[in-house]
Amino acid sequence: MSKKYVYLFSEGNASMRNLLGGKGANLAEMIHLGLPVPFGFTVTTEACSRYYEEGKKIAPEIVKEIFEAVKALEKESGKKFGDVKNPLLVSIRSGARASMPGMMDTILNLGLNNEAVVGLANLTNNPRFAYDSYRRFIMMFADVVMEIDKENFDKIFDERKKLKNTHDDADLTAEDMEYIAKAFLKRYEELKGEPFPQDPKVQLIEAVSAVFRSWDNPRANTYRRLNHIPYSWGTAVNVQTMVFGNMGMDCGTGVAFSRNPSTGENELYGEYLFNAQGEDVVAGVRTPKPIAKLKEESPEIYKQFHDIAERLEHHYKDMQDLEFTIERDKLYILQTRSGKRTAQAAVKIATDFVKEGLIDEKEALLRVDPQALDHLLHPTFDPEALKKAEPIGEGLAASPGAAYGRVYFTAESARQGKEKTGDPVILVRLETSPEDIEGMVVAAGILTARGGMTSHAAVVARGMGTCCVAGADHVVINEKEHYFTIRGHKVNEGDFISLDGSTGKVYAGKIATTEATVSGDFATLMAWADKYRALDVRTNADNPRDAKVAYNFGAAGIGLCRTEHMFFEGERIKAVREMILSKDKEGRERALAKILPMQRQDFIELYEAMHGLPVTIRYLDPPLHEFLPTQEHEIRDLAKEMKVSYEELNHTVNELHELNPMLGHRGVRLSVTYPEIAVMQTRAVIEAAIEVNKRGLKVEPEIMIPLVGEVKELQYVKDYVVRTADEIIKKSGVKMRYYVGTMIEIPRATLLADEIAKEAEFFSFGTNDLTQMTFGFSRDDAAKFLGDYYERKIFEFDPFAHIDEHGVGKLMANAVKLGKQARPDIDLGICGEHGGDPRSVDFCHRIGLNYVSCSPFRVPIAKLAAAQANIRNPRK
Amino acid sequence: MSKKYVYLFSEGNASMRNLLGGKGANLAEMIHLGLPVPFGFTVTTEACSRYYEEGKKIAPEIVKEIFEAVKALEKESGKKFGDVKNPLLVSIRSGARASMPGMMDTILNLGLNNEAVVGLANLTNNPRFAYDSYRRFIMMFADVVMEIDKENFDKIFDERKKLKNTHDDADLTAEDMEYIAKAFLKRYEELKGEPFPQDPKVQLIEAVSAVFRSWDNPRANTYRRLNHIPYSWGTAVNVQTMVFGNMGMDCGTGVAFSRNPSTGENELYGEYLFNAQGEDVVAGVRTPKPIAKLKEESPEIYKQFHDIAERLEHHYKDMQDLEFTIERDKLYILQTRSGKRTAQAAVKIATDFVKEGLIDEKEALLRVDPQALDHLLHPTFDPEALKKAEPIGEGLAASPGAAYGRVYFTAESARQGKEKTGDPVILVRLETSPEDIEGMVVAAGILTARGGMTSHAAVVARGMGTCCVAGADHVVINEKEHYFTIRGHKVNEGDFISLDGSTGKVYAGKIATTEATVSGDFATLMAWADKYRALDVRTNADNPRDAKVAYNFGAAGIGLCRTEHMFFEGERIKAVREMILSKDKEGRERALAKILPMQRQDFIELYEAMHGLPVTIRYLDPPLHEFLPTQEHEIRDLAKEMKVSYEELNHTVNELHELNPMLGHRGVRLSVTYPEIAVMQTRAVIEAAIEVNKRGLKVEPEIMIPLVGEVKELQYVKDYVVRTADEIIKKSGVKMRYYVGTMIEIPRATLLADEIAKEAEFFSFGTNDLTQMTFGFSRDDAAKFLGDYYERKIFEFDPFAHIDEHGVGKLMANAVKLGKQARPDIDLGICGEHGGDPRSVDFCHRIGLNYVSCSPFRVPIAKLAAAQANIRNPRK
Repeated sequence: MSKKYVYLFSEGNASMRNLLGGKGANLAEMIHLGLPVPFGFTVTTEACSRYYEEGKKIAPEIVKEIFEAVKALEKESGKKFGDVKNPLLVSIRSGARASMPGMMDTILNLGLNNEAVVGLANLTNNPRFAYDSYRRFIMMFADVVMEIDKENFDKIFDERKKLKNTHDDADLTAEDMEYIAKAFLKRYEELKGEPFPQDPKVQLIEAVSAVFRSWDNPRANTYRRLNHIPYSWGTAVNVQTMVFGNMGMDCGTGVAFSRNPSTGENELYGEYLFNAQGEDVVAGVRTPKPIAKLKEESPEIYKQFHDIAERLEHHYKDMQDLEFTIERDKLYILQTRSGKRTAQAAVKIATDFVKEGLIDEKEALLRVDPQALDHLLHPTFDPEALKKAEPIGEGLAASPGAAYGRVYFTAESARQGKEKTGDPVILVRLETSPEDIEGMVVAAGILTARGGMTSHAAVVARGMGTCCVAGADHVVINEKEHYFTIRGHKVNEGDFISLDGSTGKVYAGKIATTEATVSGDFATLMAWADKYRALDVRTNADNPRDAKVAYNFGAAGIGLCRTEHMFFEGERIKAVREMILSKDKEGRERALAKILPMQRQDFIELYEAMHGLPVTIRYLDPPLHEFLPTQEHEIRDLAKEMKVSYEELNHTVNELHELNPMLGHRGVRLSVTYPEIAVMQTRAVIEAAIEVNKRGLKVEPEIMIPLVGEVKELQYVKDYVVRTADEIIKKSGVKMRYYVGTMIEIPRATLLADEIAKEAEFFSFGTNDLTQMTFGFSRDDAAKFLGDYYERKIFEFDPFAHIDEHGVGKLMANAVKLGKQARPDIDLGICGEHGGDPRSVDFCHRIGLNYVSCSPFRVPIAKLAAAQANIRNPRK
Repeated sequence: MSKKYVYLFSEGNASMRNLLGGKGANLAEMIHLGLPVPFGFTVTTEACSRYYEEGKKIAPEIVKEIFEAVKALEKESGKKFGDVKNPLLVSIRSGARASMPGMMDTILNLGLNNEAVVGLANLTNNPRFAYDSYRRFIMMFADVVMEIDKENFDKIFDERKKLKNTHDDADLTAEDMEYIAKAFLKRYEELKGEPFPQDPKVQLIEAVSAVFRSWDNPRANTYRRLNHIPYSWGTAVNVQTMVFGNMGMDCGTGVAFSRNPSTGENELYGEYLFNAQGEDVVAGVRTPKPIAKLKEESPEIYKQFHDIAERLEHHYKDMQDLEFTIERDKLYILQTRSGKRTAQAAVKIATDFVKEGLIDEKEALLRVDPQALDHLLHPTFDPEALKKAEPIGEGLAASPGAAYGRVYFTAESARQGKEKTGDPVILVRLETSPEDIEGMVVAAGILTARGGMTSHAAVVARGMGTCCVAGADHVVINEKEHYFTIRGHKVNEGDFISLDGSTGKVYAGKIATTEATVSGDFATLMAWADKYRALDVRTNADNPRDAKVAYNFGAAGIGLCRTEHMFFEGERIKAVREMILSKDKEGRERALAKILPMQRQDFIELYEAMHGLPVTIRYLDPPLHEFLPTQEHEIRDLAKEMKVSYEELNHTVNELHELNPMLGHRGVRLSVTYPEIAVMQTRAVIEAAIEVNKRGLKVEPEIMIPLVGEVKELQYVKDYVVRTADEIIKKSGVKMRYYVGTMIEIPRATLLADEIAKEAEFFSFGTNDLTQMTFGFSRDDAAKFLGDYYERKIFEFDPFAHIDEHGVGKLMANAVKLGKQARPDIDLGICGEHGGDPRSVDFCHRIGLNYVSCSPFRVPIAKLAAAQANIRNPRK
């Protein structure tokens, strides 16, 4: 039996979404519910795939099926497609599986031509309506199918209104409409070099092809990438018998949500216009009326609509977004779908639905997009203030939230600027490095000219919950003369700018912000998430401030404390540099001894901030050259400060230089060469734990050795750690357990995880590095060519944003299997950036990790994602 | 039953090598053959492992077993250990599974003390002999067990000779020997702070411990690493009843090979001394006599020894290295083992043994170390000339062979220097880059101050068969003033130096070299290798010169032609730079059009050099910044030459800068961004093939896309390749097949090899990059810490020299499995540096590759390794 490519609405239902698209499936479902839906049919997504497979042609057998369906519409409506007396007119709408805003606009009134328009005028006795419909159709067809700019037609329309000395379409007469339609036809022919197609069959097939074509347009491709919609899905096409909202004042059209999509309040929310069609409601030429007004103007229709909206909401058990048309006082529903909503509304609607008994807690958890919670956790611009603001540039939306402040270009000047003015500051840098930490901490927002979503600035800002716009490549900084330019706009040091880290937009001046509020519904939802999730959610935090934020969000511990961040501050970096310049172990130990008390104090504060929850401490990871300057004048200054010769310091800088620092002397390799570093860090970790244990807080620190690729590396360093720790614990008389584990971030470690698990009491997947090494590109350098990769559809998403389950994920799953074989009770977590990404959290759940660790502000997001993962795939 | 740690010689045999070590197993075997071997016993390698496991202590039960075995020796000899009248004396020798030159020296005469020496004197009526034996024992024990420098004792000995006014030990009397022995005891006590141990049991256990300890000394560790001997094997200890070559002129000691180890001639080869013990033969104080002399001096003993040597050779079916002692005209064999030999001897002996019917061809193939063939393929220093030369420094033995020449510091001056003087030149550089190719081609040898075994200089030099000493870090180059220094030695431009790329040594002045000769036996062996191997051996060659060398060595084709090497020469680099600076596709195509005819001609010559064998061409791989300079003055010069502004060129240089170039915009990623490069290369490959096909040489080019990590990358580029190629072929009217495949060098590619194999007609493992990414370190940067890794026994060998079967090998095996699943006839090869490494070749055989590809001079080595692999693990 050959495949069926066209389904009448009566042949489908809501479960056939993959084949019929969301719109088609819902239209079919409404037909079955007996709702007043104009009849029609859907050309399937499989027809779209075939269209592309066959070199962008619609196969003759599919064309045949389409016209068979048209016959059914004719039968249903009693009208005839292409008939001059009683023409069947249809609308054409695209409809993919998932809502795709990038897709093609609707075409209405298809089937009209120079003869049928006369027939329609006669039949309805309404020539104005007939020509209004025709001119709309011509323009939509020209625009959407033939890619002729709408402007060409708007000009004609506006000139006619000018001639008639009016601003209101309603003042145009039947003659005006006829004149306009004809002028449109003429313009069309001029621009296309051929007359407007008069054969409705040609119109229809062209329109269907245009929908298919639109699946591959750049807007759609970008949207798909951002929303993880596979290219292979394709779109369906819906062909529906027209009903008319533009036949007079007893007609109209509107859109409405079954609840308020902004607040979640349980009330109809929408707009309508009488004597209008299609885009009129949103086009801005006429001001539509709020839906509540319909209750007064047409109580019967309002009641019908209200009941239908409620019925659909109950049927789909979700807030609905409806389109309707009133034709001569009869209500038609043209579309229903789950309504888009703000995060706040999503939370309220989900919890309200549970209260109303429509759905259970699990379903409610599945209803909220974890990613959207981000908006509930960060300040946003005051919507009124934002309306008046014009962006001066944009970059990557690297860390959410909104902020304004005075511009400074160095960490030092940012700190001073804040002290001096008392105003918030925005740190603007080419890119940030660990040395900028101080400036980042004081900044209300960070703007960088270079670097991607996982650049230093982005990662650190997300960790701190500070808003950040990264990689704004039109920013040109003149640090010397204290200004920067962005698309010709000059901003001086000390000037105010505003950043929106959720959109990536940069504004001149100050835009007021409003603080986030965590409503009671949000707390309810989070409690449910805790109830249903299997994964624990820890946080990545290097300082008590971040740790407290995460603790308040309910983090189950610290999954990653990067100790190197503690090495950059004030006096410490001096001691670190002294260590690097030491010629021997004794010299290094002397320098490390200076860091010890500071680092111990850090850990005491961290342990206390987490109230005894687990704290995983990663030992020094970056290559040592990160602690030294690279520019000659900086080296000269530092040499003076350190009282060594320029030559000596420069020699060390050169010696430490690496061709591929990511693949260089870092991580466990540092401790192999200089075990005294691991010894000092162990002293700090264990002595701090003993101290807080004495104060009555039970702490069992987890020591994490990074970048292990071979079990003997771990053995070697662990031996120092254990000897040091055991000696201190024994001396202290305190009874205390501690754990030694490793990051799994080198491909080889995943292959030999069984051997490594014999030494490691826990694994924490470092998926940033693991992704880089498995793909063989560095995230910094890949930014240059990933654009080409998306454009050519080689990658459909960013592997640094979502775990590459297909490749990197295989290595992870293998490591989990081997690790558990060797040590059944091994603790398994992830501490890469992916730990806060809902899709990646789902994957981590499926492969059997025990916890994910993410930046503090992502803890609620990860919790919700973990709950969803366990609801979808419950753990035994 | 408890484990047995001590075996009498009568309890062992040759097959127990792992437990008894090579020496112990052979002594046992000889006992069974009825040869005159002094009786003894072996403490097993397992006792050694236990020694380390238990914190460097010999367990009491093992001590007990040792003394039980001593009892057996007492019974056999009728003497008594520690007896004052008839003392049993023993020798102590280490003996690991494999020969380990780094191990402990022998201790003779153990069991003597102040009383036993008197007994021995009385018993033998030879006090001179007794005290000679005692003084020897004291010194060996002090040196080997107690680590007291021999010098302390040599001084006493020499002073006594001076006093006696003689240079000959033989002139010393019994009194002298007694004096010396006592002076040694005194000195020992002074230095150790305790008397020399008088208890033979203490002596014995201390000596056994010393052998175990020596397993872990730095020399042994280095030797093991270079020879892939696992640390875990441990060493055995052999305790053997003494026989004495120093009892008079009817006694003696000697060493001899059953055939000439230097030439392979079938003749006894060795030396002996009468009235001597232990090291006397090799110590240089007395001149030993050639073994042939023994035939005259003692025909009966000579005949006995000759027969035993022949018998052992036939028994072991290998050339033997024997130690013997004559005690009062009775011959004793103290040791036999397979003799070390030169490559030339190895080949001759193996083929002779086949002729003599002792072994078959397969066995003969297994007898020759593939690595050793290297010496047969490169020039070497004239041995006589070398004797007079003193090295002035050393680096890594990066590419074998010997050379002398005049020193130059740049490619340009090297070329000019050669032209001007007509003498060979040595290129001396900090490190080389592709821009130095011209200089490397004219050089007879290359010396670099930086870089490891897989640095650019090393890889290219090995490919060209040019000798190279790399990473000689004491070399300090002053390019400006035209000289370099090495350990204080100054060498000016134009001065002669000599390099030995097989040892890494650097000499001042000219040392004559001798060309390699490929003897008839070598050809015979190679013919057998071809007969028994399953793997094909291709070559890595980028130019006709290398291709011809490899063809003459019997390469089965080119497995890797790196096209980028062709991009650096003369006019080409200008066109490449023009392409890089182009603002658009048209500009790039214009520049590429200039390269096309040159590249086409390259391929024509390559195809012709290979006479129609397969040629695999890898498309442009390195990041584009490698084609541009980085220093300001170079950029300025180039800008002038290219007629662009400095700012523009500098901007491009900065834009192309990468933080981790190995993980940057290179390989297939270049072709994704600039498909026009792949199009030009395809034109050149296919047009050249058509051209030679027209001339009657059938060529089916293999196009290899590097660095693929995702099948869609390959699809994207392959599409351009196929469209271009098919169009050209169609137009030409020639019938021609070509293949498109990929390198497997990104970890992700190994995980998704099934998907990739659907597009790739062949895989070629790029194990250099695969190793770097799997381990997460770059070979350039790893050099800095790998030393620490070897020292701490974290790595036992260099993963860039031998495939890491345990980690990287797993990925490779997985890729082979998946690749064959998806495409059963897929052609599988390897073209990384490992392709010429015998151990790696064996691995490639075992996982089922079809071919290995290596540098031309390694083709015979790889062939022999492939034959051995298939003999060990025959392919079905």
